[in-house]
Amino acid sequence: MTDLTFEVKVTDGLARTGRLTTAHGHLDTPAFMPVGTAATVKAMTPDAVAGTGAQCILANTYHLMLRPGPERIDRLGGLHTFMNWPGPILTDSGGYQVWSLADLRKMDEDGVEFKSHLDGSVHRLSPERAIEIQTLFGADITMVLDECTALDAEKDEVARSMQLSMRWAERCKAAFPDRKGHGLFGIVQGGLHDDLRAQSAESLINTGFDGYAIGGLSVGEGQDAMFQVLDGLTPRLPEDRPRYLMGVGKPADLVGGVMRGIDMFDCVLPTRSGRTSQAFTRHGQLNFRNARHKDDAQPLDADCGCPVCTQYSRAYLHHLVMAKEILGAMLLTWHNLHYYQDLMAAMRKAIADGTLNAFAAGFEAGQNQEAGSGEPATGAI
Amino acid sequence: MTDLTFEVKVTDGLARTGRLTTAHGHLDTPAFMPVGTAATVKAMTPDAVAGTGAQCILANTYHLMLRPGPERIDRLGGLHTFMNWPGPILTDSGGYQVWSLADLRKMDEDGVEFKSHLDGSVHRLSPERAIEIQTLFGADITMVLDECTALDAEKDEVARSMQLSMRWAERCKAAFPDRKGHGLFGIVQGGLHDDLRAQSAESLINTGFDGYAIGGLSVGEGQDAMFQVLDGLTPRLPEDRPRYLMGVGKPADLVGGVMRGIDMFDCVLPTRSGRTSQAFTRHGQLNFRNARHKDDAQPLDADCGCPVCTQYSRAYLHHLVMAKEILGAMLLTWHNLHYYQDLMAAMRKAIADGTLNAFAAGFEAGQNQEAGSGEPATGAI
Repeated sequence: MTDLTFEVKVTDGLARTGRLTTAHGHLDTPAFMPVGTAATVKAMTPDAVAGTGAQCILANTYHLMLRPGPERIDRLGGLHTFMNWPGPILTDSGGYQVWSLADLRKMDEDGVEFKSHLDGSVHRLSPERAIEIQTLFGADITMVLDECTALDAEKDEVARSMQLSMRWAERCKAAFPDRKGHGLFGIVQGGLHDDLRAQSAESLINTGFDGYAIGGLSVGEGQDAMFQVLDGLTPRLPEDRPRYLMGVGKPADLVGGVMRGIDMFDCVLPTRSGRTSQAFTRHGQLNFRNARHKDDAQPLDADCGCPVCTQYSRAYLHHLVMAKEILGAMLLTWHNLHYYQDLMAAMRKAIADGTLNAFAAGFEAGQNQEAGSGEPATGAI
Repeated sequence: MTDLTFEVKVTDGLARTGRLTTAHGHLDTPAFMPVGTAATVKAMTPDAVAGTGAQCILANTYHLMLRPGPERIDRLGGLHTFMNWPGPILTDSGGYQVWSLADLRKMDEDGVEFKSHLDGSVHRLSPERAIEIQTLFGADITMVLDECTALDAEKDEVARSMQLSMRWAERCKAAFPDRKGHGLFGIVQGGLHDDLRAQSAESLINTGFDGYAIGGLSVGEGQDAMFQVLDGLTPRLPEDRPRYLMGVGKPADLVGGVMRGIDMFDCVLPTRSGRTSQAFTRHGQLNFRNARHKDDAQPLDADCGCPVCTQYSRAYLHHLVMAKEILGAMLLTWHNLHYYQDLMAAMRKAIADGTLNAFAAGFEAGQNQEAGSGEPATGAI
């Protein structure tokens, strides 16, 4: 398929830089995509999101199909116009939230029926409807509908579920309307079982997708188990197609994922943390509810050039958090997204320079420092 | 006094344009000052506030003396540095909030003792301490401490209270440290009684201030009663000093105030309304909780050039409000502050052109239209 163009540029071990080109512009990979669940990256204007360096955002089909509804978004000009984001948009299929948020009514070979967590209204998702909805949104990158299994499911249950997801993936591919610059990604399932992951990857590759996502991770299995799955899986995925690790993760997860050949990530962590007084720095995390920031005239992260770190003190951020001011959530989210984008840019540079291993060592040393210890940055971000 | 320079430029009836110059820049009058209660104009970055055209903001002494505290703000470089607002700042004295928010403990000739609404801690405000606090903040415009009386107070009680406020105003003047570009405003009290207002004005003029504020209005007396007080009072105030109507008001209050010779206003209405789904337009108000906006691709106000009206639909704003997204409060606040600043700029232009009466008639006609009726703007904003 040539709906999305993906060019691998430089490799460094398993890691690689690349460029994915969509109908609404390109993403330089490895890329982190901020989450705009309900057609807004929470507490951020689109201009500010773009200013952090983010090139592609994710929006959630489950939330948007319930409110304001895909047909309405289509009538209003599609998701890009609706939310004023001119760049690429990736939408998930809605499956994950159906399993985690909705009241599940009925699930069979055809699809899933569920009750909205908002108003109890009954909705239906099938592979075909998931594609139709994302097409109404005008998504640049569309995800197949998959079933999600619990982390503690027995292996035969994980296998059955993965096989259903593979049949659904085929139906998604058949239903997906080819348009230049728009692509469909398959999702590898199979839990923590290397053989099931391998079968899933093989099935998807046979069907053929514009990109390959890895689902069902970062659900409590721990970083070691996640990295073990990636170690077994990424070498099986096509080198000339983007690899997307869904819902991941912490900064250290991104570094480890990139080193294992992942090209794309998304996670609510930087935005959610910003709304719960947490900030990421080159020297670990800070909690702005902590009274030790009360008189601290230092910037959040002295090595960060973002609009928050160059204009505000820790004391002011602490004050905003304690006073429950909206600006507190705005500024911490802004910084966190900047931090994530700076981290990705630094990894792209390290890969281009062939120094990713050294970068990763410096990154880890920085994270093990006391945040705010005043020591110079060792990470090369 | 020459601590603040005020130049009247053009008059049109009682209305006038002017420029007030402070240590941190100037205000073109008539001016509307957004309220930044806790050292943040709620849901706005300082850059965005400045982008609306606002030149001076107000911060509340009561809130900031309780948290984070004036001595702390001073150690952190003063309020301008703390909140990253490089322009002029006016601070109130804290008196109004002591009477409306705190648990009043003791009130005598010397001052007032109260319990914080945040943590029950006991604090004291006297004329001298109110000046000291605002000086620690680094306010460009400092307000005298006054006592506030209830709207339904008997006339002899209003008189007693006004006379106490006048003695406190003298003590504030004596305590105020002269610095270039920093000034002290007196506050006329006297309720709805013309003779008390006149006595209060005379007393303040004898003491001598950089500007004259009108307090105790917009507390439920209604627009007619407020305008009646202004009709009797503003001709008694020095022509060469700015006149500031505190805590006012609705767009129509600003128009009526300017026509009666007022130079400065502040009010939480545009910001608070933005957080409660209300928007001001050239054709009346809109409530974005209303389902009629659900499918409306029109901008909030087709005649507004602000970043909200040029980039988003009413349908999207409705969606954000219904989904309780922070961006909803951010965008509606942003537009409302733009609207208020556009209104002030239009009035300054009308005064300069000698057409304020015609402007006011057009403004009123616009406000009486159905908002969103699609009719062209009649107001000249």
